[in-house]
Amino acid sequence: MSSAVPSSTVMPAVATTQVAIIGAGPAGLLLAQLLHLQGIDSVILEQRSEAYVLGRVRAGLLESPTVEVLREAGVADRMAVEGVEHHGIHLRFDGRTHQLDFAGTTGRQAMNYGQAEVVKDLIRHRRATGRPLVFEAEAVTPTGFESLDGHGPAVVTWRDEHGEHRLTADFIAGCDGFHGVSRVAIPPGTITAAQRSYPFAWLGILARTRPTLPEVVYSAHQDGLSVHSMRGHELTRQYLQVPADTVLDDWPDERIWTELTRRHAADDVGPLATGEVIDRTLAPLRSVVFSPMQYGRMFLAGDAVHIVPPTGAKGLNLAVSDVSVLSHALGGYYAGAGSHHLAEYTRTSLPRIWQAELFSWQMTTMLHRFPGDEFDRGLQRARLEQVVASPTQIAALGELYFGLPFPRHWSFRD
Amino acid sequence: MSSAVPSSTVMPAVATTQVAIIGAGPAGLLLAQLLHLQGIDSVILEQRSEAYVLGRVRAGLLESPTVEVLREAGVADRMAVEGVEHHGIHLRFDGRTHQLDFAGTTGRQAMNYGQAEVVKDLIRHRRATGRPLVFEAEAVTPTGFESLDGHGPAVVTWRDEHGEHRLTADFIAGCDGFHGVSRVAIPPGTITAAQRSYPFAWLGILARTRPTLPEVVYSAHQDGLSVHSMRGHELTRQYLQVPADTVLDDWPDERIWTELTRRHAADDVGPLATGEVIDRTLAPLRSVVFSPMQYGRMFLAGDAVHIVPPTGAKGLNLAVSDVSVLSHALGGYYAGAGSHHLAEYTRTSLPRIWQAELFSWQMTTMLHRFPGDEFDRGLQRARLEQVVASPTQIAALGELYFGLPFPRHWSFRD
Repeated sequence: MSSAVPSSTVMPAVATTQVAIIGAGPAGLLLAQLLHLQGIDSVILEQRSEAYVLGRVRAGLLESPTVEVLREAGVADRMAVEGVEHHGIHLRFDGRTHQLDFAGTTGRQAMNYGQAEVVKDLIRHRRATGRPLVFEAEAVTPTGFESLDGHGPAVVTWRDEHGEHRLTADFIAGCDGFHGVSRVAIPPGTITAAQRSYPFAWLGILARTRPTLPEVVYSAHQDGLSVHSMRGHELTRQYLQVPADTVLDDWPDERIWTELTRRHAADDVGPLATGEVIDRTLAPLRSVVFSPMQYGRMFLAGDAVHIVPPTGAKGLNLAVSDVSVLSHALGGYYAGAGSHHLAEYTRTSLPRIWQAELFSWQMTTMLHRFPGDEFDRGLQRARLEQVVASPTQIAALGELYFGLPFPRHWSFRD
Repeated sequence: MSSAVPSSTVMPAVATTQVAIIGAGPAGLLLAQLLHLQGIDSVILEQRSEAYVLGRVRAGLLESPTVEVLREAGVADRMAVEGVEHHGIHLRFDGRTHQLDFAGTTGRQAMNYGQAEVVKDLIRHRRATGRPLVFEAEAVTPTGFESLDGHGPAVVTWRDEHGEHRLTADFIAGCDGFHGVSRVAIPPGTITAAQRSYPFAWLGILARTRPTLPEVVYSAHQDGLSVHSMRGHELTRQYLQVPADTVLDDWPDERIWTELTRRHAADDVGPLATGEVIDRTLAPLRSVVFSPMQYGRMFLAGDAVHIVPPTGAKGLNLAVSDVSVLSHALGGYYAGAGSHHLAEYTRTSLPRIWQAELFSWQMTTMLHRFPGDEFDRGLQRARLEQVVASPTQIAALGELYFGLPFPRHWSFRD
């Protein structure tokens, strides 16, 4: 197979680099850029085609520390023009809409800018560095990474349209997502998982409709959450909480619009606009934290090592947080500071990861309809009322929504 | 039986009042005072002796709205002298102590003043009004209260050392606690309970020891919570989380001190002082919300209609909130505004009650050791780190700890 855009770097059969990066999502691409800015070489290997990577529709809320890193990484030129400042959310329950002004109460900012756009920008900037970016790399296999300080190097082999390849590297960065090859290449029993599954999924649509409100609306309806967000003036992304065992074929457009309209209804806004559905997705909700995030010369980042439910939009931001820590540690190594920061990667990263997991869990349990008794329901309704009870409560939620500071600045020389 | 202090009002065998109040705890006594200030007559009937009522050791954190109501009720003269301003709490986990400055971050205040002191003050002020206060009333039985607007009056009968009594009243206020007669006199099936039990209890001691720190210390130890609070310079009240099936005899002083010392330990403070244990209690933890809070002419307030776990010290404050709403509604009725506010008693009170239930549940689940998996433990530790993450997070907790505003001012004429 070859992609529509013949953009892959042609690699020699045998090559050497400093950091082999597996995965060209936001984590891998941004790590490569942060390393490049510190003079560190890398090769990025991606199993999928460029068109596939660019076409993935994901959340688009960038925390303020994420915006800061993207700016400092020199990849925010287009975001500065096309990104939309994010002021807060609308929270709807008991037929009323509460506008939570996070920007006003926290004095901070966040940005609406789609993950696909971030990836597009990162790929363009990667090309500009002249460093390798390989798409459609098949049978990617990382080996030889077992010891951090022992005899190296690590090796990654793969196959592409040009044949078999072997890359030696000082380190491997596993940025290839939950289903990637990196984490599973680590010996069994080394990494443990803390996890939670939820008894529901998100049915998402992309529709040609005019948005009801310019900022995201979370409607905590008694029959389940609905989410409404804009993607431009005539395009909306909307979600419905559905049972975990839902089959997409059971949800024709009419059923989706009926349910969205019903859950979206509130006394204080107009009806939901309906229109053409141009994309549909179904995603389970789960929380997973793998630990440790490192084994020898293999370092995991982003979805490869933790998953958050989409409520609260932390996934991309966590990936950026991870690679900020990792690029700092790798920068330290190549600056002659030894492997100390690399060995501390998990311990440095984990507390903030758990903050994001907690926030995502709090938003998920606050907004979805859960099985539970009268006491659970009373608590859940009280929680909705608690977060809108005062400017202080709104600021406390907003501070977490807009993002706590990252554990480390991305550059070691700072 | 007669009490050590012969203080009971001698009531005639047949009498009439406006509001019959069952229970001389904080709820009943304060309600009587708030009614008195509006020119409304009441009779207070208490099953226990005065000595027993005065001897009950309970929490002593007064929220700022509670302090305000006690001041306005004219019963805060001694509290103004002997009460200690409450600035915040100490939260200890992972061997470190975090001083949470709620006063500084919220600009508000709360008060340390024992519940027994509040009750003592309220009894003294009740006596000064000359209105009836009956202790050791046996077989208290409320009847005839089934309809709010229909033919009255309600009737309460009881027996005391002077014989059988019958009191007719426009309304009955059931302020007689969780095990009282008022709630159970309401026909079965009328009131529903939302509830949660926890798999642990609090073993509490009163000890002659010098306090480690002047404000309350919550130590979230991996083996369970311990709480340390001062009751003067040479007296401490301390608690241990213990299993729900604990037997007090299994906990001799030495075992209590060993466990308290171990859980209290932190790198940044000195060891716990030990000494004579002069009182021990064992209390289960539970959350209960009964609803509705009213049936006909019977109005329930305080522990008679909801229970919170002691974590967060909301019990007394909830009682004050309830009787503020109830005294407003009764004031409205006697001012000629009809029974509208009385009929709305539950709906007016319940949202704030749920806020207190939520806060108590949040504090309880944050601080205690629970059965749970790795994900639960990760969330719990992250929650502890979340509340100390910034001044905004501390202020958000402090605002709830110091108390949200009451739903109504206590006097109708305001």
